[in-house]
Amino acid sequence: MTQAYTPPKVWKMEEENGGKWASINRPDSGARYERALPVGKHPLQLYSLATPNGQKITILLEELLALGVKEAEYDAHLINIGESDQFSSGFVSVNPNSKIPALQDISDPKAISVFESGAILFYLTEKFGHFLPRTGAGRSQVMNWLFWLQGSAPYLGGGFGHFYAYAPEKFQYPIDRFSMEAKRQLDVLDKQLSLSEYIAGDEISIADIAIWPWYGNLVLGGLYDAAEFLDVQSYPHLLNWAKKLAKREGFERGRIVNRSWGELWEQVPNRHSAEDIDNVLALKP
Amino acid sequence: MTQAYTPPKVWKMEEENGGKWASINRPDSGARYERALPVGKHPLQLYSLATPNGQKITILLEELLALGVKEAEYDAHLINIGESDQFSSGFVSVNPNSKIPALQDISDPKAISVFESGAILFYLTEKFGHFLPRTGAGRSQVMNWLFWLQGSAPYLGGGFGHFYAYAPEKFQYPIDRFSMEAKRQLDVLDKQLSLSEYIAGDEISIADIAIWPWYGNLVLGGLYDAAEFLDVQSYPHLLNWAKKLAKREGFERGRIVNRSWGELWEQVPNRHSAEDIDNVLALKP
Repeated sequence: MTQAYTPPKVWKMEEENGGKWASINRPDSGARYERALPVGKHPLQLYSLATPNGQKITILLEELLALGVKEAEYDAHLINIGESDQFSSGFVSVNPNSKIPALQDISDPKAISVFESGAILFYLTEKFGHFLPRTGAGRSQVMNWLFWLQGSAPYLGGGFGHFYAYAPEKFQYPIDRFSMEAKRQLDVLDKQLSLSEYIAGDEISIADIAIWPWYGNLVLGGLYDAAEFLDVQSYPHLLNWAKKLAKREGFERGRIVNRSWGELWEQVPNRHSAEDIDNVLALKP
Repeated sequence: MTQAYTPPKVWKMEEENGGKWASINRPDSGARYERALPVGKHPLQLYSLATPNGQKITILLEELLALGVKEAEYDAHLINIGESDQFSSGFVSVNPNSKIPALQDISDPKAISVFESGAILFYLTEKFGHFLPRTGAGRSQVMNWLFWLQGSAPYLGGGFGHFYAYAPEKFQYPIDRFSMEAKRQLDVLDKQLSLSEYIAGDEISIADIAIWPWYGNLVLGGLYDAAEFLDVQSYPHLLNWAKKLAKREGFERGRIVNRSWGELWEQVPNRHSAEDIDNVLALKP
């Protein structure tokens, strides 16, 4: 069981790992080539992919549009991370961290750049005045849970998901470590949802919109194929909440934007108008 | 090299791991025993420990006090996570996630509970009006980097730090994976600090206060003893920023609050007044 490995004095990326990692992951940052980003006609330009972090933003935008907030109209441009789109000079100028999602608000004369999904949710909710109370204990409670998600999901995605689903071998120690943490997180959410209808109280908020794409998708079987492994049936309040939100118009529409895999009726690689989503959902059996 | 491990259909915590993990980490959440939290005399009651996430809050509070914001007076109560203080009924009622730091604002009739270090930074900066611009591109830029920290530090702490410093064996694959990501993050910060004096522009903000306890401590050699391993000398802008901030009064004072290890002059386990820190700093050689 013991691996005879002693870390070197100074870490270096090993040559034999270069091939696999070199296409995407490297120990440095910055633009790898020159290319401008496409720009559409709406105030908000989103550069993203329908991973959980990307879905947060398109769900919020579609929820805003469903409320009649016309200023939330947006162009959503597909960023294919497997093709290194996130390392173009254009993308890096919006998000130096080279991760989706990234947003530009071109309704502002300065073309405000927003990156990190939590910051984009906060920016949009502050701009449009929905899904976050403006003052009081309700506001802090939403922010508590929004930050909870942003600090917890890396253990689910970069920890559990990576070692359970993506790593080249099944390593027991990290799988045990991150499975325990994933289950602890699921239990935290289940207990919270036994107390109130939504994560931060009686009304839906950006906390729900942030948490659903990760933990909602997970318990509904849409992430890492791990629903049985993590015994999601033992979190009934979380499951009910996940199913209820999945039926909302904004969630149904938002989750398929910037998606380029799966069934035909759930693929809207680029979104420039409501019809781009309508046309695809019309194919749903 | 291949470990002959096949995950079970349904994950269960193994008995042989129970002993080591049972004292702190479990796959469930909630209070483990009944005990109320101590309450001091100031408006803000902080329950914390001087890990990087704890240091963020005490640094901000000391920076606010250094600016003359008297309403930022606080009691800081030590939460010994090795002794399971975070699982008391009192602590869980403030933070159901059982992680430090947690804050109660008892100046509000409802005694507002705030948890997650990012949410606490945001709450305090919104309450007192410092270290976050109220509007415009400057505000989004600070929030971008605040959320960047909250989503990135889990890879440094729960990923790199755990596998490099704390795991029972040196597993090469996770060490390589998280070392690469840690170095990428250091490079992102170094490039950003080559463009502006502080992380989010020309003025210090809660982004700097959030990032310093993790990445500043790391490059100064105060975290995981990994400065050589990660070759921190190759990030000169980050190093200069880390050294500059370490000299500020708020950083020097805040970093030692709720600390119960190290030299005598850097241990203020509980803080109820400025003198509690003054008396300890007076011992500094």
